[in-house]
Amino acid sequence: MGDPRGVGAEIIIKALDRVGDAASFVVYGDAEYLAAAAETAKIPQWNRQVRAIHAAGADGGNLLTEEGAGDASFRWAEAAAGCVLGLPGAAERADALVTAPISKAAWAAAGHNYPGHTELLGAMCGAPEGRFAMIFHAAAAEELPGLNVILTTVHVPLARVAELVTTERVLNTIRSAAAAMDDLGVKSARIGVCGLNPHAGEGGLLGGEDEQFIRPAVEAAKAEGLDVSGPFPADTIFRRALLGLERPADFDCVVAMYHDQGLVALKTMAMERAVNRTVGLPIIRTSPDHGTAFDLAGKNAADPRSMIEAVRLAVRLTRGRAAR
Amino acid sequence: MGDPRGVGAEIIIKALDRVGDAASFVVYGDAEYLAAAAETAKIPQWNRQVRAIHAAGADGGNLLTEEGAGDASFRWAEAAAGCVLGLPGAAERADALVTAPISKAAWAAAGHNYPGHTELLGAMCGAPEGRFAMIFHAAAAEELPGLNVILTTVHVPLARVAELVTTERVLNTIRSAAAAMDDLGVKSARIGVCGLNPHAGEGGLLGGEDEQFIRPAVEAAKAEGLDVSGPFPADTIFRRALLGLERPADFDCVVAMYHDQGLVALKTMAMERAVNRTVGLPIIRTSPDHGTAFDLAGKNAADPRSMIEAVRLAVRLTRGRAAR
Repeated sequence: MGDPRGVGAEIIIKALDRVGDAASFVVYGDAEYLAAAAETAKIPQWNRQVRAIHAAGADGGNLLTEEGAGDASFRWAEAAAGCVLGLPGAAERADALVTAPISKAAWAAAGHNYPGHTELLGAMCGAPEGRFAMIFHAAAAEELPGLNVILTTVHVPLARVAELVTTERVLNTIRSAAAAMDDLGVKSARIGVCGLNPHAGEGGLLGGEDEQFIRPAVEAAKAEGLDVSGPFPADTIFRRALLGLERPADFDCVVAMYHDQGLVALKTMAMERAVNRTVGLPIIRTSPDHGTAFDLAGKNAADPRSMIEAVRLAVRLTRGRAAR
Repeated sequence: MGDPRGVGAEIIIKALDRVGDAASFVVYGDAEYLAAAAETAKIPQWNRQVRAIHAAGADGGNLLTEEGAGDASFRWAEAAAGCVLGLPGAAERADALVTAPISKAAWAAAGHNYPGHTELLGAMCGAPEGRFAMIFHAAAAEELPGLNVILTTVHVPLARVAELVTTERVLNTIRSAAAAMDDLGVKSARIGVCGLNPHAGEGGLLGGEDEQFIRPAVEAAKAEGLDVSGPFPADTIFRRALLGLERPADFDCVVAMYHDQGLVALKTMAMERAVNRTVGLPIIRTSPDHGTAFDLAGKNAADPRSMIEAVRLAVRLTRGRAAR
């Protein structure tokens, strides 16, 4: 359910009302918050199963405090992930995980030191940093272009990004991009890779990582048969990857080196339409691409489109996996 | 004229043909390249004054080599800037400088070690690094939104960005943004400032510079009476600054911390419409926001819109300065 002080309950109610019986859903969250959101949203037929497990948590389970909200949202995420991983003690078995927005500051206040769901899941799966990644899909719709972006690094300070951009990590991200696009039915996806530095380093004049680490990863991925090219200057690559315009795109997916490089393009073009998926882990996990939106909570003003797409993608990926 | 192997001559010919007699123009470049571009573009009435000064340069003035092209384009820029600065030995006096795209690699090959025009001009003006900045204006047009973006750092490797984001530098950039918007007739511009780190540091969890350096700069600028706020997460701020949409924008101008943070948004949204201006220097200088486009040169295929806007902005700023 994400942070109880945010829009999680509301967008879950609205999204599950929309997707109907596409699957069986269990919400790990607070029943009262969900019921209140259903009443506010005038969706009285709300009757999903709910697992409420916050009562024993930090700050006495007080969801109105940052510590209590952080502890509850962490435990909901951890328990739901346990169901997907089939961990001992999990309340049930689940095929996929959809997460609502959490506050990293609240998680930290409750002593849970993960930058986000993605890193928690990586740790629970025993996956080393650099092996899993976040990919964002925005479908073309309503005359707005589509865009697919994967991040090589995610929740790290900008000053640390350059040292994390290794050939191995970029290569893993390129592979993950190809696999994720294949999951969406895009075979032999055309993948464009961003440089790290301005102008992709301009031949080394503006930084050496582009030639030293990124280009070898692109060449190695090519040798594996992937349709990949780069590194390209980041300021113009996204324009070449917008889907659904009159002019065909050059790329199906862009590999960005860091958070803002990829998400400035995605969120400026496609806010409210994009869905986020974690790749490189053995589980299916999706989420909306927006945050907690504390200022909108309780006002029935949250836009559920990204959560709807997140639930639909989780269902689609589950069926795709089952069909193999 | 920029790099002779690029589209500079062509977009100059096309732009000056369009803006007509808005001002007196002198092109520092190569007469033969300009004449050839005029013939290809079918603009035979081309008759601007041309100052060709490459003959004495590197590699015997051979414009087809990287070294020769780099040396010529550097000398053209240096000589034209000298006219605007009123340096001794300048061939004439000019009010404003418009530059066409150069290759930084070619400049370096010819021994001219500046990342771009902007840094050359900073050095010629005796301006310390951090006092001048690049601002990009894209006007709303043809149902596409407008956007104004200024960069706090420009042509530096990503790994060096964090150490350059000081309170003084951010404050100077905010001041430059306000002054530049004022020059365009936007009084008391609403300025939004990006964080450096993902999620603007998320309260320090994803990096400390946002609170340590950027927020004090925003507070200091507020104390000076500027309408400024931030730091905000970069991935969502640009959406709030798109001009000309149904929903009014929250900001007239965005202060980005580094090259790709600002230019991914600008070029994805507004390619071919944006114009670049250097602020914080005593001279007026504008340029198109695209590169040399070597692959398009000589084909009469270059889009001159950004150069047209660059010339128009230079004329407008010159008249605005004269009116004060």
